[in-house]
Amino acid sequence: MRTAIRDAWIVTQDADRSIVRGDVVIDGDVIVSVGGSGVEADREIQAGGDIVMPGLVNTHCHAAMSVMKGSVDDLNFPQFLENVFRIDSDRNDADLDAGARLGLLEMIRGGTTTFVDLYYSQDVIAKAVEESGVRGILCWAVLDEEFTTQSGNPMDNCRRFCESHSSMRKVVPGVGLQGVYVCGPETWEEASSYSIESGRVMTFHLSETRGEVNEHQRKTGMRPGDWLGSMGVLHPGCLAAHSAWLTLNEVRALGRAGMSVSTCPVSNMKLATGGVAPIPEMMEHGVNVSIGTDGSATNNSVDMFAEMKTLGLLQKSSRWDATVTPAQSLLDMATIGGAKAAGMGGRTGSIEKGKLADLIVLDGKAPNLRPLLPQNMVSNIVYSGNALNVKTVMCQGDLLMHDREVLSMDEAQVLSKAEDAWLKLCSR
Amino acid sequence: MRTAIRDAWIVTQDADRSIVRGDVVIDGDVIVSVGGSGVEADREIQAGGDIVMPGLVNTHCHAAMSVMKGSVDDLNFPQFLENVFRIDSDRNDADLDAGARLGLLEMIRGGTTTFVDLYYSQDVIAKAVEESGVRGILCWAVLDEEFTTQSGNPMDNCRRFCESHSSMRKVVPGVGLQGVYVCGPETWEEASSYSIESGRVMTFHLSETRGEVNEHQRKTGMRPGDWLGSMGVLHPGCLAAHSAWLTLNEVRALGRAGMSVSTCPVSNMKLATGGVAPIPEMMEHGVNVSIGTDGSATNNSVDMFAEMKTLGLLQKSSRWDATVTPAQSLLDMATIGGAKAAGMGGRTGSIEKGKLADLIVLDGKAPNLRPLLPQNMVSNIVYSGNALNVKTVMCQGDLLMHDREVLSMDEAQVLSKAEDAWLKLCSR
Repeated sequence: MRTAIRDAWIVTQDADRSIVRGDVVIDGDVIVSVGGSGVEADREIQAGGDIVMPGLVNTHCHAAMSVMKGSVDDLNFPQFLENVFRIDSDRNDADLDAGARLGLLEMIRGGTTTFVDLYYSQDVIAKAVEESGVRGILCWAVLDEEFTTQSGNPMDNCRRFCESHSSMRKVVPGVGLQGVYVCGPETWEEASSYSIESGRVMTFHLSETRGEVNEHQRKTGMRPGDWLGSMGVLHPGCLAAHSAWLTLNEVRALGRAGMSVSTCPVSNMKLATGGVAPIPEMMEHGVNVSIGTDGSATNNSVDMFAEMKTLGLLQKSSRWDATVTPAQSLLDMATIGGAKAAGMGGRTGSIEKGKLADLIVLDGKAPNLRPLLPQNMVSNIVYSGNALNVKTVMCQGDLLMHDREVLSMDEAQVLSKAEDAWLKLCSR
Repeated sequence: MRTAIRDAWIVTQDADRSIVRGDVVIDGDVIVSVGGSGVEADREIQAGGDIVMPGLVNTHCHAAMSVMKGSVDDLNFPQFLENVFRIDSDRNDADLDAGARLGLLEMIRGGTTTFVDLYYSQDVIAKAVEESGVRGILCWAVLDEEFTTQSGNPMDNCRRFCESHSSMRKVVPGVGLQGVYVCGPETWEEASSYSIESGRVMTFHLSETRGEVNEHQRKTGMRPGDWLGSMGVLHPGCLAAHSAWLTLNEVRALGRAGMSVSTCPVSNMKLATGGVAPIPEMMEHGVNVSIGTDGSATNNSVDMFAEMKTLGLLQKSSRWDATVTPAQSLLDMATIGGAKAAGMGGRTGSIEKGKLADLIVLDGKAPNLRPLLPQNMVSNIVYSGNALNVKTVMCQGDLLMHDREVLSMDEAQVLSKAEDAWLKLCSR
């Protein structure tokens, strides 16, 4: 099946960051032509000056939490956690499924084609992901057996999940670690070895709050980033979420490992955890930077457009320097950087011949994006763009939304089940 | 003409902040019934579980700058100003008109029904405002004659504009002052007297950057807020924009005057001007707090939904306290607080019998707003809402957009003229 998207402004995100006008042609899973015209196709999408750009990559998410939206706001961190744990402990597989499907529906509507998820029960979430057509890097949450509510050993559960989900179309299994506060050295070493052997992403929470940093330093004499670096468990497949309270020494350790970070500005700001991730230093020291929304209990959305802009605002304002994290680098983090962090580097994140057809079409007639010229296109996407400017979404050649109609999910059913779950879990 | 909006979730913003299910009935300019059912009407709008809420009030804007979008980003303040002044000096009335119309179109699409504008040539902008159907509190920019590029005396120009535009349907003229850096004591006194006599809003920039505060302190020995307070020019009709670099003493002076502030978080963060407006202290000391987007050269949008959320994020994160500026108070600032700041207190900002019919309908089926229950409705509007969730917009009984079709403006023409202006002014 060959699809042609005709006469688009193509924000390629290739090595030259070219913006070209013309067609994008997709054959099966992959892009076969960019910027030409006249290639025949079985399916035609008339872009007529709309923007075609890479699908966005959300590198830190807990999709199943979308169902908790608006239930735990404006609370300080300890009270927030208490309420989330209470809601969480009441959930069954049907609730997780309802939450994951709502999150996936929101991702499609907002132009996210790949996300990294850190959660337990990823086998439940995997079904929803596969049906939605969004690519999910599903990382099973591992922690020391003494702290878990999972039945069995979490690392064994993770391994079992990975092995049994290794040949799905849109699900890519991975390893998750809750964080240094519930994972001892053996767990880190075992997870890291498995991640390297199997070539799977290993993601984990790192230094989200100053409390967890202080506590770890008290227990081990080292800050979490230094501690992980000293154990030799960091490697290029690692993806550390938050990473807001890092010293320059820790940033260097992450850079030496050639690993990635998922910065979560909205979540950090809303929870008032205080730290601001040292993004310019990360970039300087070779850390691959990507962006995550975190779960909808904290954000309260999976809107990667808002996340790009908020990241830029936070970095500029906290440093009194309007030149840091310019628009192009924010877009890079949400596409190329995200792809690398998700273990998909070289395969997605840009619109180039041979890459997977993960792309979105933005309404080029939307007033908020206009005036729209090649010269201001990246600025307008990042600073004036809106998740609901997305008209059409394709992931690996599968059309998930066309002209704002979601094709891969039963929207009314998803919304209705999500509401039932909220009423059951959150309305107390 | 009687209009009924049927079966809506009505977020009234009345004194009890009631949320009720039922009809809103509008007769002519005003709301005549809230929450009932069965009243006959000439025009029917089926809301079917959509949200009806007050139109948003943007209290600091330079609408004509919408045409500069994406041309002056990621620059520090001096270089930003230099570029803006260069573009500005090349503009003629047609360019101002094109810019204002684009801004107005974006406001309609994003649910803003009243805005306060501070600019020169408000006579040009007034025509666009009146035709768009959005309510504009248009404040003519006054500064000392020695600093102005206006022909004639700016205060005389302002007075002339006000007197000649005092009986329009949607234009409400007002007094603007550029700031303490170009307005001497006589100008402040003259503007203040005229504002009090005529009952018009007097808006001005106040302490946006630390540079202007330091410079004023060097020249006068006083901080700008203290200086204005000591001259006795502050009064309940005053609206100070930005107000990011205020001491508690200045906050008290503003509070004693019973005046309003328009905080502009996105603009301040993007320009990296460093200060964070002391919102909780303002509220504690009786300042009426409202929210402004500032112009699209800095923001780069007039999206009041994003502005509400970003304000909450900035306040919480900068204070390490997630409980400050909770969702309800952010919504209050964008509705009730905005109405008061715009000199429309008691006449708009809530959905109550007898108030002007300034209201918007949000798509209650949008996945990003769901699950949607009365218990999480305010949280979801503020933290999960999106400007493009707005389906229908009414200002003073006039239907400006219905089911996402803009009725009061020729959208294609507005976009085309804005693009021409950008190419002429910004593409160098």
